[in-house]
Amino acid sequence: MSAQPMTMTQKILAAHAGKDFVAPGEFIQAKLDLVLGNDITAPPAIKEFVKLGQPAVFDNKKIALVPDHFTPNKDIQSAEQCRQMRVFAHDQAIENYFEIGEMGIEHALLPEKGLVVPGDVVIGADSHTCTYGALGAFSTGIGSTDMAAGMATGLCWFRVPEAVKFVLKGQLTEHCSGKDVILHIIGKIGVDGARYQSMEFVGEGVSSLTMDDRFTIANMAIEAGAKNGIFPVDERTKEYLENRGKRPSVIYEADADAVYAQVIEIDLGKIRPTVSFPHSPDNTRTIDEVEAMEKEKGALTIDQVVIGSCTNGRLDDLRIAARYLKGKKVAKGVRVIIFPATQKIYLDAMREGLIEIFIEAGAIVSTPTCGPCLGGHMGILAKGERAVATTNRNFVGRMGHTESEIYLASPAVAAASAVAGKLANPERV
Amino acid sequence: MSAQPMTMTQKILAAHAGKDFVAPGEFIQAKLDLVLGNDITAPPAIKEFVKLGQPAVFDNKKIALVPDHFTPNKDIQSAEQCRQMRVFAHDQAIENYFEIGEMGIEHALLPEKGLVVPGDVVIGADSHTCTYGALGAFSTGIGSTDMAAGMATGLCWFRVPEAVKFVLKGQLTEHCSGKDVILHIIGKIGVDGARYQSMEFVGEGVSSLTMDDRFTIANMAIEAGAKNGIFPVDERTKEYLENRGKRPSVIYEADADAVYAQVIEIDLGKIRPTVSFPHSPDNTRTIDEVEAMEKEKGALTIDQVVIGSCTNGRLDDLRIAARYLKGKKVAKGVRVIIFPATQKIYLDAMREGLIEIFIEAGAIVSTPTCGPCLGGHMGILAKGERAVATTNRNFVGRMGHTESEIYLASPAVAAASAVAGKLANPERV
Repeated sequence: MSAQPMTMTQKILAAHAGKDFVAPGEFIQAKLDLVLGNDITAPPAIKEFVKLGQPAVFDNKKIALVPDHFTPNKDIQSAEQCRQMRVFAHDQAIENYFEIGEMGIEHALLPEKGLVVPGDVVIGADSHTCTYGALGAFSTGIGSTDMAAGMATGLCWFRVPEAVKFVLKGQLTEHCSGKDVILHIIGKIGVDGARYQSMEFVGEGVSSLTMDDRFTIANMAIEAGAKNGIFPVDERTKEYLENRGKRPSVIYEADADAVYAQVIEIDLGKIRPTVSFPHSPDNTRTIDEVEAMEKEKGALTIDQVVIGSCTNGRLDDLRIAARYLKGKKVAKGVRVIIFPATQKIYLDAMREGLIEIFIEAGAIVSTPTCGPCLGGHMGILAKGERAVATTNRNFVGRMGHTESEIYLASPAVAAASAVAGKLANPERV
Repeated sequence: MSAQPMTMTQKILAAHAGKDFVAPGEFIQAKLDLVLGNDITAPPAIKEFVKLGQPAVFDNKKIALVPDHFTPNKDIQSAEQCRQMRVFAHDQAIENYFEIGEMGIEHALLPEKGLVVPGDVVIGADSHTCTYGALGAFSTGIGSTDMAAGMATGLCWFRVPEAVKFVLKGQLTEHCSGKDVILHIIGKIGVDGARYQSMEFVGEGVSSLTMDDRFTIANMAIEAGAKNGIFPVDERTKEYLENRGKRPSVIYEADADAVYAQVIEIDLGKIRPTVSFPHSPDNTRTIDEVEAMEKEKGALTIDQVVIGSCTNGRLDDLRIAARYLKGKKVAKGVRVIIFPATQKIYLDAMREGLIEIFIEAGAIVSTPTCGPCLGGHMGILAKGERAVATTNRNFVGRMGHTESEIYLASPAVAAASAVAGKLANPERV
């Protein structure tokens, strides 16, 4: 090891570049532990891969292909894209190809299947690939061309990011969860607040966060412009990995004297339920500000609630939603669509009685799919419609018509809003 | 009453036309008990209705609007269509508008909600409106223009159909259900075998058919070209209607000396599991012929199985499917999509443990939608793909690419095929 101090991300990248030290700004080539693609991004990557003329991928165990965006096949075009991916997976004997029925949303599925372990370097042709930072891995989104090169060589180039240290203190209050933490942070630093930087979440506050909180927080690092988000590995991480992690893992800790571009302290206990208003994740309001606005201008009535996605479709998220929906009825005229993120989560939620709570409340429960989050299918908004969603982006037209509106929020706020028929405070339910 | 004998359909139409007798071929105007539209057909009907300049619909209790075809909204266009319907329902105070969360596929939902009772005349801007004949009602599909006129006037014109009498004898064997009966009949008489006729199902065999069998049989009357399909009302019908039927019903029986264009005897005990091969519902083979073909030419391997739709998405259908999937695994590479037809059926199936059986077997379970049946969304086929489906039509391109293939079958055959990975005989499971 070098005497020069490094952040978690530096250490992982150095190890994968075969170096003792890598400096922020340095260009490196790193070995990849996993290369991911989905039904939108894999087909162009496959096309590029074929052009290379190389008969086989670098390692058929280190590629994951997940048809999750427009599946079950939305239309003929998406069916053809899935077929290309399926045929490629078959021809290349890709072990980690997941057909519908055994699948889920990629960023929930891969950790669940134990395909990412601490210390990994993972690239995925999907911007929310940064999710796996929750497990102490370096993971980041890349384009289809880099995916093609990664499949061929098992390598990817990176500019080593400098890091911002988020020191978490205290613990969340009753109605808050990881989503409020990350929305609070994005609201604070802006959608370019961590541009091409690593967001390292450390401090005694981390231990109180569930793994699902951490996945949500790491998942949305990209919404602050970050290259990756990353958490240290603790007892909760190890518990999560038990009976999952399929490969040996390496646990990296940032050096105490590592150099950070910025250090930001976050008191978890002071975070309030937070909502991102249209049309940017950093356009945040606390629920108190929402209530003050309501008094002044009237309630923000809503047409749809979406609970799910790679950001908030995990079991904890569904448990939280169920807490606010149990024994209640969805407000008349509001469409509530709940998407468990994987088949396993769906099954676990069913066994816990959560799905029954949702259906009895008047919500509908979909098979896992990215669906409405990206304006794909299964819940697209018409002109002028307003949705509260636990998804990750509320850009203009993201969920449908360019004149529709998305309010990003936690499962608690989303479920409370479903019952109230307006953007609502979960503390009042 | 007239001394002239009449069929069931003649009697219902005569009563609704205010006449003692109506003759086959006669043009009449009949009072409507219910006018139905969905998210594809209602928007053009609404447009036509608006053109009429009439401020209100004839009766806001006698119109049903069900957004089931492209919901949850597939895309912006479908979202806009749903919005048009929703706004119209609100403006006209239509009582029977069903938002997702309280809905289902129209032809399963309306009987479930007690909106159709024996003796009714129902029109719906959907060809499978003939389903309600299972309840001893006259119901038939019409176009959006007739729907508009129906909403305005509460009347519709009909040419009184002559009838074909299907005398059912015996009872179905273990692995057969209503789907096999109707596919057998369509295979026998052809897709124009009952063109503009009423298919009246009578005989001692009727009593052994479940209500769900009867819904399936009446549902596919249109696939033989029929104007409607109709069953007599018996104890099972009355039991089904208990706590459902919202209006007084009138039970009509065909006169013993009613005149039929044709009388066809069907021995239910001799019906074999039956499959409609591409690309027509009358291109049927018994499962024995399928097995003989397999010996000669090899197995018909499949890519997808769809269990659901207005034809076979009811609780009995799911129970049957679960019987063949319980403790089994879906064959590798086969995508199995199961669609309970309504939220109530979904909930009932979950409480019975059926949904758990499906997920454990590796199937996915969708929220109610017409979805793949009409090539809408949620399971579209790519070029060259082959599906076994419990749906109602296997025309070229119906479920996706024009070079894909659909094999229509019962839930038993579909579930057995899901496990076998090929078109399979449920008797061998």
